[in-house]
Amino acid sequence: MARRGEFQLIAEAFAPLAKGDPLAFGLGDDVALVAPRPGEHLVATNDAMVRGVHFFRDGDPGDVGRKLLRVNLSDLACKGAEPLAYLLTVALPPDLTDGWLDAFAAGLGDDQKRYGIHLIGGDTTKSELDLVLSVTMLGSAPAETLLRRNGAKVGDRIYVSGTIGDARLGFLLARGKLPEASTEDAQFLRGRLDRPSPRLKLGRRLRGIANSAMDVSDGLLADLGHICEQSQVGAELSLAAVPFSDAARRVIHVHEEEQKSIITFGDDYEILFTAPPDKGSVIAAIGDELGVPLTVIGTIVSGGPVTVRDASGAVVPFAQAGYTHF
Amino acid sequence: MARRGEFQLIAEAFAPLAKGDPLAFGLGDDVALVAPRPGEHLVATNDAMVRGVHFFRDGDPGDVGRKLLRVNLSDLACKGAEPLAYLLTVALPPDLTDGWLDAFAAGLGDDQKRYGIHLIGGDTTKSELDLVLSVTMLGSAPAETLLRRNGAKVGDRIYVSGTIGDARLGFLLARGKLPEASTEDAQFLRGRLDRPSPRLKLGRRLRGIANSAMDVSDGLLADLGHICEQSQVGAELSLAAVPFSDAARRVIHVHEEEQKSIITFGDDYEILFTAPPDKGSVIAAIGDELGVPLTVIGTIVSGGPVTVRDASGAVVPFAQAGYTHF
Repeated sequence: MARRGEFQLIAEAFAPLAKGDPLAFGLGDDVALVAPRPGEHLVATNDAMVRGVHFFRDGDPGDVGRKLLRVNLSDLACKGAEPLAYLLTVALPPDLTDGWLDAFAAGLGDDQKRYGIHLIGGDTTKSELDLVLSVTMLGSAPAETLLRRNGAKVGDRIYVSGTIGDARLGFLLARGKLPEASTEDAQFLRGRLDRPSPRLKLGRRLRGIANSAMDVSDGLLADLGHICEQSQVGAELSLAAVPFSDAARRVIHVHEEEQKSIITFGDDYEILFTAPPDKGSVIAAIGDELGVPLTVIGTIVSGGPVTVRDASGAVVPFAQAGYTHF
Repeated sequence: MARRGEFQLIAEAFAPLAKGDPLAFGLGDDVALVAPRPGEHLVATNDAMVRGVHFFRDGDPGDVGRKLLRVNLSDLACKGAEPLAYLLTVALPPDLTDGWLDAFAAGLGDDQKRYGIHLIGGDTTKSELDLVLSVTMLGSAPAETLLRRNGAKVGDRIYVSGTIGDARLGFLLARGKLPEASTEDAQFLRGRLDRPSPRLKLGRRLRGIANSAMDVSDGLLADLGHICEQSQVGAELSLAAVPFSDAARRVIHVHEEEQKSIITFGDDYEILFTAPPDKGSVIAAIGDELGVPLTVIGTIVSGGPVTVRDASGAVVPFAQAGYTHF
């Protein structure tokens, strides 16, 4: 099929995304330069999305672009880092149209403005069948107060920002399930799946306050397990305390079986963090100031991995903690 | 088919590659930290390889790993930058075996030692059919002496390191062509295709000496065109001056039609650079010291893009300057 040549595609769709940053050299050189803020380290993370695996084949290409940036920004957010710039690699199958790529690039452009970042490099190649989109996001953070996974201490309270499970319900809605959800609820839940909100301000405010943090991408239960493993501690998680949005609550009321799948699905891009009890009031104040709910959902304990309990205190068994690709 | 789970794959194949660098956090966190050398900038570049596009389906997986790193290292080399660390993204199709991945990781491990770099992050996902391998390579360089594409000046001599065209002939050999090549020549030429040598030492020595530089990856003619475009100059290239290896010379003697395709094929990973004539003796001394041939192949002129001339001075026409993916 007819598609622009490689260099024309780069010049028309991608080079404009590099305009705001003189160190990107307009994508016209072999490399780009980045400088962390004075006294800080460069922070690097990478997340890829594959058509049919991470997004629907008929998904809005602008939203695909936005989500690609936001899942990467979320990794910086949960560490308390500031985003600077990104590299983009695309492997393009023969069926992909110029129109798709332009709409995808427009989505990237929207979010560049929203988050104050720029494209600085990458690679464009062809594939046989798969559409693979990969971003390396670069940011800046002071190394000493980077929010790590490995700092959780016995006695820490476990917090999560925002609400959990909206993306799971949005996914089910996109698959034609949950027909009794109202139009408003369906729209909200799809929005949470397609356009997550990396908690950049919150992450920065948690520097020096949280003992450990990560973002919820593999599933709340699995991600809490990652913190426990890296910190060599255990966790008691209260299923009844996990915060749900009003929309999710209305849907879960109808579909009780969703409550368990919700904490193993992931794609929430909220910040999961732990902090000592004496930081409770300062954390509450941060949540109020930013308008982000910060909910205590459990406690860090010694030993074991993660134990989930229902409202009566009984252990809730889970066959699988989270999402895994294979 | 049976393959290790995602987290087991990362733990067994990839996490050992992150061991040497404490700022990589053993791939156990959301991000990794990198610091450029004091007073320098961070340099970032990205190159992806797709099975069937950039490497043969039955290619040695260790060589695939090595080449993936080396094509990225070559981008740093030609800018005069020092490599530090890299992120790796892999999209894995169902047919890929654990054995392939282990051999691929072993190739990465070999070259990490050779070039003093470490894996610091990335992403592992599945694909339907394509094997997509992408590296973001991070390095350090002083911003002031970064060797850019846009600095070529009228009157500059055009140089290329090493020899050109070996990869093209290696590719033809791999496709079962050039049957009259000797075993030794065939082995040498295949080696140049599969295991290019990024010119890291040379690039650093050219800081402050070359006016412009890039690596030869799209084809000598196309890449010289990139320098001319970015520098807003033209070039006169002497086909007879393009340096060939002894093996290439023996093969070209038999296949004269290859001489033109050689300068448009690419994959050479030599440094193409320009420098004023008064730098001739210092450049010759650098070549002698490093044991790398540095050959003058033309001159930067005003206007036009690139004109190629044969030994008699007649213009040699080219339909296409270099390799393009689509």
